Amino acid sequence: MRHDERVTLAHGSGGRTTRELIERVFAPYFKNPVLARMNDAAILAAETGGRLAFSIDGHVVSPLFFPGGTIGDVAVNGTVNDLAMMGARPLWLAASFILEEGLLLSDLERIVRSMANAARAAGVLLVAGDTKVVERGKGDGVYISVAGVGLIPPHLDIDAGNIRPGDVILINAPIAAHGMAIMVQREGLAFEGELESDTAPLHGIVQQLLEAAPRTRAMRDATRGGLATALNELALASHVGMVVEEEAVPVNDAARNACALLGLDPWHVANEGVFVAVVPPDEADTALKALRSHPLGRHAQRIGVATAAHPTHVVLRTTLGAERILTPLSGDLLPRIC
Amino acid sequence: MRHDERVTLAHGSGGRTTRELIERVFAPYFKNPVLARMNDAAILAAETGGRLAFSIDGHVVSPLFFPGGTIGDVAVNGTVNDLAMMGARPLWLAASFILEEGLLLSDLERIVRSMANAARAAGVLLVAGDTKVVERGKGDGVYISVAGVGLIPPHLDIDAGNIRPGDVILINAPIAAHGMAIMVQREGLAFEGELESDTAPLHGIVQQLLEAAPRTRAMRDATRGGLATALNELALASHVGMVVEEEAVPVNDAARNACALLGLDPWHVANEGVFVAVVPPDEADTALKALRSHPLGRHAQRIGVATAAHPTHVVLRTTLGAERILTPLSGDLLPRIC
Repeated sequence: MRHDERVTLAHGSGGRTTRELIERVFAPYFKNPVLARMNDAAILAAETGGRLAFSIDGHVVSPLFFPGGTIGDVAVNGTVNDLAMMGARPLWLAASFILEEGLLLSDLERIVRSMANAARAAGVLLVAGDTKVVERGKGDGVYISVAGVGLIPPHLDIDAGNIRPGDVILINAPIAAHGMAIMVQREGLAFEGELESDTAPLHGIVQQLLEAAPRTRAMRDATRGGLATALNELALASHVGMVVEEEAVPVNDAARNACALLGLDPWHVANEGVFVAVVPPDEADTALKALRSHPLGRHAQRIGVATAAHPTHVVLRTTLGAERILTPLSGDLLPRIC
Repeated sequence: MRHDERVTLAHGSGGRTTRELIERVFAPYFKNPVLARMNDAAILAAETGGRLAFSIDGHVVSPLFFPGGTIGDVAVNGTVNDLAMMGARPLWLAASFILEEGLLLSDLERIVRSMANAARAAGVLLVAGDTKVVERGKGDGVYISVAGVGLIPPHLDIDAGNIRPGDVILINAPIAAHGMAIMVQREGLAFEGELESDTAPLHGIVQQLLEAAPRTRAMRDATRGGLATALNELALASHVGMVVEEEAVPVNDAARNACALLGLDPWHVANEGVFVAVVPPDEADTALKALRSHPLGRHAQRIGVATAAHPTHVVLRTTLGAERILTPLSGDLLPRIC
């Protein structure tokens, strides 16, 4: 690569530019069969015979506190959800804190407390940790990386690359709440109170789903880069096309209005409690019913299907019958949203 | 705690102030039997029957490149070593990168390459990763957190709390090289070339040690906070005293001279390839021989014994026969050394 190229904010977007960075800088050196599967968590064939899920996620969300959560909630739930997306039962977490000199201990305590509460709610144990401090002006309060390990039941075969044409795409909840809650807080807009982050541990609803639809092909939580990016990643990994009905995708009014006000596309806004599940057609009805019977899936919807046509492309069918390609996030819409 | 207390650089030192932070802020919320064992890596009783080691470590070392290594080497070896200290065979790593806007891609590539080389040398796979970017002035090039999982052979019982009076304390290599290599680089001193970081994966020499001394009680790598802090942590966890012979502890001349020049105590300077092993007296001779037969243990020494007297205190017996209490690092001697 050219010697004057620099990291930009877009490299952290989770969208295309992030992928480019990974493909150009990381993949050439780290390439191995586990990473190449493009899953949210690594599946580890332990010599003991079981399968472990092992994942890591860094969090640099700003501000540290926002309607509906803290950086700590998001850090714990983010890793719990990465494990859940592989069908794993999340069990153990390890957290690395990078603190900025000058951070109020009371703020740190508030964050730690929210992490402990989130871990308890998710039924996971934080079993290892590390803390570093950097000089004032070399950080931003606190950055948190959380790694997690979970166990995968033997009968499941969930993988981003498993989707086949005809499979049905489901979503559990309305999109864009987390990102817009952060933006509204950051910009000091008048939406406060109506908009809250959707941060939540998803393994409970996932477990309910997998009991109803044990042949679930793939799942992905629609975090950085939003729903559009999650769908594109799955389509790419499985080399299928997707057709999604715009009208079927739930968006709350407050999030839709905030997006309109700020000129943002809800399809690209980060979520922390939204996931898509792709299931075989004969399991779609029971799967949707299972999602809707869980508190985190009350507004679950069937949003589209996988197709043999236009592989790796996601086509959005709009309310008026028009079609457009739904691209993954490019550039960084909302820096430091998680 | 008081509402105006703030995080200081000393909170990241790895010494006493770090412990205070953990005890005051983290432990009240995260307390569980696994964390309470005070080991470098968590031992996970997988339902599959095996025992896993799972660890995390954040790295904020400045500068990013220094004689003998990069932040990437140290990040990989640091986690490999935390697993090795539990007797685990390190298998899988997950890395979280927090990049600063403006970082040269070529610098990032150099770091990633050094990580890949270190992982290959250690025989571990990096199986998951995450990248975030923060605005210019909110980071310092790159921060890296690495989590690791390893498998522990069934016959071992290694734990910081296992040391008994009479046990023998061994060290594998001269102390203070890593910290002084960083300081010399940072201060632009003339020592360059003589002083190199000792960053290295220790699981190979540990395996050799454990074959010779299968009843090894405890091990600890002497990273942040130096040898003094590592010994104090072990003495505290096992509620034993320790007597260490000053003359027996190897220090290279270059490191000793650099310490003298900068007014630093080599006992408190960070290492990245030094560990202490505490073994039962009847295994001490074979253990020392095993250490010395490995390239990373050529200068291994027997440095002291555990005692029933003065539990939790480490006493240093100086060359002149005088004794002084060897305290763990207090405050932050060398910020951002790892």
